[in-house]
Formats: sequence, C-alpha cells, structure tokens
Amino acid sequence: MKLLFEPKFDLYVDIITSEAKKSRDIIQLQWGELASVPPERVKDFFVEAFEKGLTHYSLPHGDLMLREVIRRKLRERNGIVADIDNIIVTAGGTAAISFVFRVVAGDGGFIIVQDPSWFGFSGIARYVGARIVRLREYDYSYEALERAKSEIRRLGGELRIVVMNYPSNPTGYVFDIETMKEVIDFAEDNDILILSDEAYEDYVFEGKHISTASIKGFSHIVSVFTISKTYSFTGLRIGYAVGPKKIIDAMALAQVHTYISPPSINQYVARRLLEENIAKGIVEKNLKLLKQNLAVVKEFVEANEWEIIEPKGGIYAFIRLPGINSAEFSLRLLREEKVAVAPGIDFGENWKEWLRITIAKSKEEIQEGLKRISRFYRRFHH
Amino acid sequence: MKLLFEPKFDLYVDIITSEAKKSRDIIQLQWGELASVPPERVKDFFVEAFEKGLTHYSLPHGDLMLREVIRRKLRERNGIVADIDNIIVTAGGTAAISFVFRVVAGDGGFIIVQDPSWFGFSGIARYVGARIVRLREYDYSYEALERAKSEIRRLGGELRIVVMNYPSNPTGYVFDIETMKEVIDFAEDNDILILSDEAYEDYVFEGKHISTASIKGFSHIVSVFTISKTYSFTGLRIGYAVGPKKIIDAMALAQVHTYISPPSINQYVARRLLEENIAKGIVEKNLKLLKQNLAVVKEFVEANEWEIIEPKGGIYAFIRLPGINSAEFSLRLLREEKVAVAPGIDFGENWKEWLRITIAKSKEEIQEGLKRISRFYRRFHH
Repeated sequence: MKLLFEPKFDLYVDIITSEAKKSRDIIQLQWGELASVPPERVKDFFVEAFEKGLTHYSLPHGDLMLREVIRRKLRERNGIVADIDNIIVTAGGTAAISFVFRVVAGDGGFIIVQDPSWFGFSGIARYVGARIVRLREYDYSYEALERAKSEIRRLGGELRIVVMNYPSNPTGYVFDIETMKEVIDFAEDNDILILSDEAYEDYVFEGKHISTASIKGFSHIVSVFTISKTYSFTGLRIGYAVGPKKIIDAMALAQVHTYISPPSINQYVARRLLEENIAKGIVEKNLKLLKQNLAVVKEFVEANEWEIIEPKGGIYAFIRLPGINSAEFSLRLLREEKVAVAPGIDFGENWKEWLRITIAKSKEEIQEGLKRISRFYRRFHH
Repeated sequence: MKLLFEPKFDLYVDIITSEAKKSRDIIQLQWGELASVPPERVKDFFVEAFEKGLTHYSLPHGDLMLREVIRRKLRERNGIVADIDNIIVTAGGTAAISFVFRVVAGDGGFIIVQDPSWFGFSGIARYVGARIVRLREYDYSYEALERAKSEIRRLGGELRIVVMNYPSNPTGYVFDIETMKEVIDFAEDNDILILSDEAYEDYVFEGKHISTASIKGFSHIVSVFTISKTYSFTGLRIGYAVGPKKIIDAMALAQVHTYISPPSINQYVARRLLEENIAKGIVEKNLKLLKQNLAVVKEFVEANEWEIIEPKGGIYAFIRLPGINSAEFSLRLLREEKVAVAPGIDFGENWKEWLRITIAKSKEEIQEGLKRISRFYRRFHH
C-alpha cells in the first residue's frame, strides 16, 4: 500500500530521544522541557474537574470559561484586546500551528520561518501540504520579506504566512518592536498572515515580552501561547490562540475534524492554573535558573573556543562546535558520553556545526553535560 | 485573506448542540454520549499519574505501558494478535481516523463509507483532502466494492480505503462475518485498506462483537477503538488503533506534527481503566438500559407509524418521520419543544426524513423526548 506520508522519522533529535529513553543515566539536554515540576495543586484541579462532571466533549473552540480566563490573561499580560470569539483552545500550541498552516497554506502555499527554526515548523508544513522558506531572523524586515515574496512568486508559489517565533527556539532571539512593526506593515500591505509563536513568552531575560498583536491589533496575526512551557506541563497538552474570528473559526472546524475537542478535564486544569496566576512563582524561579545556566554555558563556550548565539530569552543555548557534523557528533555523544542534545542540522541545513542544549535543567546537570561534551569534542575532533 | 478551509459549520447537529448548550432544560438526544458517568476511581488515577510525574510529552506512538495493556486487551477481548509496534495511542479515536485518511488518501484518494454514516467521516476527509463515496451498508460485498472501485476509476480517481463502522453510527448496523470476509478479500486482492471503526464494540445487542482483524490478521486493516464510549468518558480524548507497522508509524508521525502526543496523564488514566477491567460493570448496565430504551423507541415508532432501522447494537436509534425535512424539523423541535436531536441530513443526503436519537439516556428522558417529538410531528406535519 502506497503511503502519502512515509513514516520517516528524519529528525535526529527523535532518534536521540528514543535511544535516550532506553537508559536511565542519560543527561537529557535535548528536549524543550523545564526542570521544574507543575504545582502540587494540579492534583486538586484534576479531582475538582472530575467532580464537576467535566468528562464530556467540549465546544469546538474549547471551554467557554477557560476562554474567558484566557481573554483576561491576554489583555492583562499581553496587551492583546480580544473578544471570546477570537480565542480557541487547542491540544497544545502545536495543534494551533498545525491548524493555521493547514487552513491558510495547505495547498502548497509558502511559509517563511526563521533560520534556524524549530524543526516542528517544517514537519507540520509537510504534513499539511505547505512549503517552507527560511530567512535569517536578524534579516526580518519589510524589504527582506518583499524580496522573499518576489522570489517565491518567481518559483510559481504564493507567500501566505510569516512565522515569528520569539523568544526563539533554538536561538533565544527576540524581535525588537521596530522589526515587529515592519513585519506587521508588510503583512497588512500584502494580506499575509503572521503566525506569532510566543510559547516562551515568560522567559525573556531582559525587559518585558512584547506580543505582536499588542502593537496594532490582530487583523493579520494569529498568536499562539501554551500552558506547557510556563507551568512545566507539556503533558497537559493545552495551548491557545488568538486571532481574526474567521481564521479562529476555521481552526475550530479543523480541530473538530482532527480530535473533536481538547480533553475537558485538562482544560479545567488550565483554567485553574491561569485563574490562580500560579505561574508567577514558577517563572521567577525558572528565569533565575536559566540565567545562571546560561552563564555556565558561556564559560564553557569561551574556554573551548566554541561559539554561541547569545539568547535574549527562551530555554535553550545554541552553540557552535567548529568542525563537527552535528548528527554524527550527537549520536556518538549519546552512546559514548551519555549526553543527549539536539543536533543543529534539525534546525536547518546551515547549522551542521551547531548543537541545541536545554538550559532549563539543574546547574549540576548542565555542568556535567558540558564537561562531557567538551571531553568528547576533543576526542572527536583530534 | 483567502482560507482553504472555510469556517462553515455545515452540520445541523453542531448548530443544534450550540443552541442546546445555552439553555439548561433541553432534553439532549443529539449527541453520542452515554448517560452513565465514568467510575469514581478515575479521580485516584489522575492523582496517581501526577504523583508518578507523568507530566511530560510521551512517545510519538503513545505511552509504552499503555500500549502493552492495549496489546493484551486486543488479544483477549478482540482476538487480535498484535505486537506493540502495531499499536498507536491517539487523542480519541477520531484522531486515528484523521491520520489514516491523511496518510493513505490525503491526495484526493477515495474512501467508501456506509450510507448513512457518521458525519465525521466526510468532514475529516474534506479536511485532509480525501474524497468520500457512499455505499448502503447492507450492500457491502466483493462485487459491490468492485463496482464502486470501477466507478471511481471512471471518475479518474483511486479507491484507497473502505470504512466499516459497526455497530454503526447512526443505524446500529453490524456486519456479519461472511460480509467481513468478502470485504477483507476485496481489500487484499486490490491492496486497499479497511478502516474498521469499532468505537461501539461493547454495545452489541445479541451475540458477541467480532473484530475484522481477528478473522485473517490485519495486513490490510487498521482497527480503531476508543476509551470514550466504553467508559462514558469522551472528555478524556484517548483512543487507539492497531494495524500494519508501516501505517501505524506514519500515523505516529502525523500525530507528532499535529499535537506531538496525547496528554500523558490521560494515557495513564486509560491504562488503569483497561488494567482494572472496569468496563465490565458499566457496559452491562449500559447495555440493559440501551435495550430497554430501544423498546420504548420502537413503541413510539409503531404508534406514530414512523419507521426505524432496527439497530443490532450501538447507542442510537435512527428513525424516519415521513414527510419531514430533518434540518428544519430539528431546529424547530429544539426551539419549540426543547428537544435536541441529530437530523438525518447530516448522515447523507438520502436521509432527509430521518432523525438520529441517542438511546443512551435515562428511560424518562427518552420517553419525554419522544412524547414531545411525536406532539411536534403532528403539529409540524398537519
């Protein structure tokens, strides 16, 4: 039987994660999960949800009360003024991205993503039938986007979406407000959608996170947020998006045709987490840890004459080990030194000498991991 | 901005559900949810899962321990002998169907579904880019399938999937073993996939449910099951599928690119429900109720000179009220008599005079609902 979507897990980070799960003593720096655990009160929230009888399907756009709490959060924390009709709850932020890609670019439409960028974007695009082009993140400007648009048209294609993921995975890049304004102007002038992926909104190292949609409204923006990263709770699978009603409605229909609705009890837990504003303490603790660990990484980078793209936020360090082939290096690093990292090649073909390591771990893990990476690098390289 | 997937909620049952949610005193017979509630122990399972730290992403195919429990359930209860690699856990059975449709027929491939059939099939097909043709369920045979295949080829298309949903939604139809064998032979001879949707496996009124994949293995079958219907727990969003490894792997990749993995705590709850075999008591109670309610429906059908397709299982009664336009009838029924039903038109254009009502409610609700339907029918019709 012919398959349209070959089961080729072509990401090295997946291979590495699978292998890493087989052993107990691996230092796992490959994955985007925070070291902290979700607050204990989550247990009570699950029980409450059950006792309230929230065991049924929810509405296509998600639970109304959760959406009301999200509406308030968006206004108070993100400066995004939205109506409940502009909000959808999804099974994690990834589902929101998948639905946007499908309904706006699923007929072979083009999507601009950052270079390097989260491997998920290209995988999702392929799955829904859209195409990816990459633009260096510090090159995002009205002119560069216009050039990219013309180039895409020359190829017979059509630019539909510009992704802005910030703080970025993997580099921790944060767009400044002037750049955001240019991208918004470009999107409005050309009737193109901005997908603003703000999953790491809480982890900005200096200053405050600025949401794209707080600048001039969201006539051409769908902004995606998640419970996963803020509360160290990727397993809850609850994210949300805000945007133009018509697109949000199309996403809701996509959701119905994919898994009906996000799990109801999980939506209640998300609501309670947001209502009680439990994030604050967690985020402060995490931020402190992230900055501390970043300093450790920078020390190692300097001592080894590696290179780092200085992150302005996020939970990763993206570092260059000159001369390596990231895929081979990472696979052998796992087997020989029991450290799992994400190879740069997964983030774009320009990044073969780079590795992404999570800095959202204990200082000891980061230090031990880097010690082994550095030891292995000397062995690998010489 | 042009949308590829217009936000057109074209199902009347969705409109009716939305309206019904606004009012508290509606008799809700429109939706496929059982009257019973999930067992109390679910609360403990949620707490256990949290205490075990199951708050992270799971593997692309789902949690290993859950898949092992599913493997045993499939062998013991369904007579399906599978390896763990043949099993995937998804966010409800719907997600499994969506992924199969996408990876096997998402390029405009054709899918045969029963007529009438669950409206989800056509919605999902449209979303992933596949096409639907309908075949009366009692016409499923080697010959009829061959004719349908030729007809599709004449249209320039290609038949990829034959759906067998039994006990069927909406008619409660159950395929006999001879028919199943013919469909399997047809699938094997023509290298076509059978999607065996057995969501209602527990609700067969006479005899035992026979799984398609227990007859000759699953070289050309993906079978879909769910926790939702068995445990009255649609809000958990956990289903699973078993099939050829290559297709299961493609589905796992589809899952990664849609929402990464099903929620981890929900997978643990599903595992404990299956391990403890908690279904037994619930299912027996539900079955008794379903049969009792079916008798009530049949009385009303006879007294009113309506028509019913006698269900052999499932949780619905599909009835014909001669002369009605099901969409208009259902909308007015909701507004004027406060009873929500699913209009036949949602299940195929041949079913304009039909209504689907859930029989998985209390006897009193069914009786009161039918009394009002009958009263309204007389008013509507005369």
